[in-house]
Amino acid sequence: MANENQIKNSSITRQEDDFAQWYTDVCKKAELMDYSSVKGFIIYRPYGYAIWEQIQEYLNKRFKETGHENVYMPTVIPTSLLQKEKDHIEGFAPECLVANVGGGEPIEDPLIIRPTSETLFTEHYAKIISSYRDLPKLYNQWCSVVRWEKTTRPFLRGAEFLWQEGHTMHETEQEARTEALKMLEIYDDLGRDLLAIPFTKGRKTEKEKFAGAVETYSIEALMPDGKGLQSGTTHYFGTGFAKAFGVTFQGRDGKLANPHQTSWGVSTRLLGAIIMVHGDDNGLVLPPHVAPIQVVVIPVAANKPGVIPAARELTDMIKASGVRVKLDESDKSAGWKFSEYEMKGVPIRVEIGPRDIEAGNVTLVKRNTGEKITVKKEEMVATINKLIDEIHDEMYKKALAYLLNHVTEVHNMDELNAALEKGGYAKMMWCEDEECENKIKELTNATARCIPFNQIPFDDVCPVCGKKAKKVVLFAKAY
Amino acid sequence: MANENQIKNSSITRQEDDFAQWYTDVCKKAELMDYSSVKGFIIYRPYGYAIWEQIQEYLNKRFKETGHENVYMPTVIPTSLLQKEKDHIEGFAPECLVANVGGGEPIEDPLIIRPTSETLFTEHYAKIISSYRDLPKLYNQWCSVVRWEKTTRPFLRGAEFLWQEGHTMHETEQEARTEALKMLEIYDDLGRDLLAIPFTKGRKTEKEKFAGAVETYSIEALMPDGKGLQSGTTHYFGTGFAKAFGVTFQGRDGKLANPHQTSWGVSTRLLGAIIMVHGDDNGLVLPPHVAPIQVVVIPVAANKPGVIPAARELTDMIKASGVRVKLDESDKSAGWKFSEYEMKGVPIRVEIGPRDIEAGNVTLVKRNTGEKITVKKEEMVATINKLIDEIHDEMYKKALAYLLNHVTEVHNMDELNAALEKGGYAKMMWCEDEECENKIKELTNATARCIPFNQIPFDDVCPVCGKKAKKVVLFAKAY
Repeated sequence: MANENQIKNSSITRQEDDFAQWYTDVCKKAELMDYSSVKGFIIYRPYGYAIWEQIQEYLNKRFKETGHENVYMPTVIPTSLLQKEKDHIEGFAPECLVANVGGGEPIEDPLIIRPTSETLFTEHYAKIISSYRDLPKLYNQWCSVVRWEKTTRPFLRGAEFLWQEGHTMHETEQEARTEALKMLEIYDDLGRDLLAIPFTKGRKTEKEKFAGAVETYSIEALMPDGKGLQSGTTHYFGTGFAKAFGVTFQGRDGKLANPHQTSWGVSTRLLGAIIMVHGDDNGLVLPPHVAPIQVVVIPVAANKPGVIPAARELTDMIKASGVRVKLDESDKSAGWKFSEYEMKGVPIRVEIGPRDIEAGNVTLVKRNTGEKITVKKEEMVATINKLIDEIHDEMYKKALAYLLNHVTEVHNMDELNAALEKGGYAKMMWCEDEECENKIKELTNATARCIPFNQIPFDDVCPVCGKKAKKVVLFAKAY
Repeated sequence: MANENQIKNSSITRQEDDFAQWYTDVCKKAELMDYSSVKGFIIYRPYGYAIWEQIQEYLNKRFKETGHENVYMPTVIPTSLLQKEKDHIEGFAPECLVANVGGGEPIEDPLIIRPTSETLFTEHYAKIISSYRDLPKLYNQWCSVVRWEKTTRPFLRGAEFLWQEGHTMHETEQEARTEALKMLEIYDDLGRDLLAIPFTKGRKTEKEKFAGAVETYSIEALMPDGKGLQSGTTHYFGTGFAKAFGVTFQGRDGKLANPHQTSWGVSTRLLGAIIMVHGDDNGLVLPPHVAPIQVVVIPVAANKPGVIPAARELTDMIKASGVRVKLDESDKSAGWKFSEYEMKGVPIRVEIGPRDIEAGNVTLVKRNTGEKITVKKEEMVATINKLIDEIHDEMYKKALAYLLNHVTEVHNMDELNAALEKGGYAKMMWCEDEECENKIKELTNATARCIPFNQIPFDDVCPVCGKKAKKVVLFAKAY
């Protein structure tokens, strides 16, 4: 990285000085978001929203390939409807935003701005499902949800966030459980293919599962400050909602039964994961497959004859190869532009100046490593296409190495404390007793992130209570 | 159309018996929507939502080509913010849904669920615009809005609907006015290219324009019951909002100025236009370019050997040509399926049975005319691709012929009454006095739909007051 740029981008806090402030600085300076006048409700600016659109495009394709259909449910839920499933309302009641007045008149059954839509989907399913022939129903919705949070941070925890919520109904428990696991795999693929983030897949403990679920699965990511970030969840509900809402179907045996239900979602919280996992002191570093701009072309000494036309020609060549490219012809200095697109995390910078033109060369700079590569003009497109995959792999491997380096097997409370102090996951054998979970939370403020699918026992007793250990579990401090 | 199908689809009301009931029947039976438990808030079912996705895809492409960027603004507006522009709040106050309670506590400045987002965009623009170099700002948002309407009808008027809202800021009046007209052209293209609906473009009268706008333009469609349907609007705001919100920029001359603003939107109301303009007594008739399923393949005598494999082969051939095709292999009867996909308005039905297979033939049926075409298997794909354009053209021309046949030039009040009685537009010369507009509304319940761009004067005086006429204006009863 050129010194010039390091100086310019010193306008943001350094990670080692204050990671939380660095994060907020990047959100603002990379123009991903802005605050609105209502606390916790953020504005998704074009660059931030464009990243979300890339995620939407990937998931929509995967959802449709697996037979899911998009729908749109109302933005409000009558209080009486949200109360129908007991555990569910207990979980969400403290976070509700409630509308009491419509058209100047009081609303008898106040309307809750949806915090999640299980109740709306289940009510609708009760009307449209009557036979096993109507199953499965595989619906998904893209929308925003509102949760009245006291402490908010851009993308990570907000009063409103964007997400998708899948809601499905199945004939059998087996089929519904398979669905919940299948969607978790798609989220895991999203991390590996698009976000360059290695997720850890697992099951949530009873204490940490979703309000109303029988089983909650999640993808967990590890941030560079050592904290965990729950990045997506899928739930198997059994027939709890179906019973509460009277959803029944005539089975193949002619008998009435309740269908088995799932829901699953990821949100704009993923933007927070991308920022933290990959970012550095010069700003955002975007994985190339999710980057709205994969390549930026910057003319150097743009006022010299031939430079702008050459930059345009390169841009057209790159565009024609299907790469998302932007040419910055503005009258800002080249150095200023270098900093700007570093802040915005554009994976590849193309520099073209009079000397390059004379030599028939193009200079490519990788955002993730700062590496400069000079290639012949005719090799540029092929090199860029190769670099896109190469950068993605480098970023994924770097994140994976960090993750592997921050999973510590612990056998007693001292080791647990030390591991959490270092940051990352404390990997522990656990008796499955919620009391031990509570005790760890009290002592360390860490929570059980998940019971990973990958279960290789390494100890016999739970280090908290000394009783027989049953499961491997990952503890961490979390967002 | 086979008699069999006409009998089956008699489950919906006939248009001539009760057009309004026919409309509601189609919305429900074609599975476009369902009612939720909150009045006026509908559920967009997969088939209805998929039509909206086609419209989104078309418009997103056109918006991005013309330099617009998508963003997402909060779903709530503080009351104090919505009140900043006087005309605007006057227009929207009676329709507001207001949230007073968040997390169990009263909210000091109650939050209005967005009915439209001019105020949010303008507040944000005040923060990010400071120089002419920051202009234009060309933002668009896909979202839902809430308007607390007393009388609601699916897609046409709802307490919540889906839409896009563009909000732009410009250096000069000229540029902003050009933007408002350019977006109107894109909406008009949408009608001609995708929806097969001929829109009438024009300017709204002072009385009918948007709350806070200097000028409102609209695309107007004519429904088969003779009523007009405003199908999309674009607005030029001047600097009113910018002044109220303190948006200023340093101009090229170094002086501070207020930018000129536009907004523009179309909504799921377009689904209502599609249903009414093209539908018939057998249900929906979808224009092929907007149809989520363009071709349905139905095996006839599906239990006979070879029929299902043949149907699958045809489906693959059609799919490979880029056409959206669905094969219905379910165990329902072929006749039942014919009716179902007629109800859903699928433009082309492919029938394949033992006799077709033996002869090497395929039978194609056009939904819009009922015409049956038998082609050799190897000609099928080319014929389908030709039919898609042919059907679109036929549907557009039919709608255009209806429109042209329902514009009546009127020279006095008797002719105005007669024209409105017949249904369609009464085309009138007008003095531009709002009193005459009010009088026509009182007497006939018709409103000025627009002052069409196409102005060819045909009379000297306003038939209401006898004063000098200045403009051609179209009156109609409207949704």
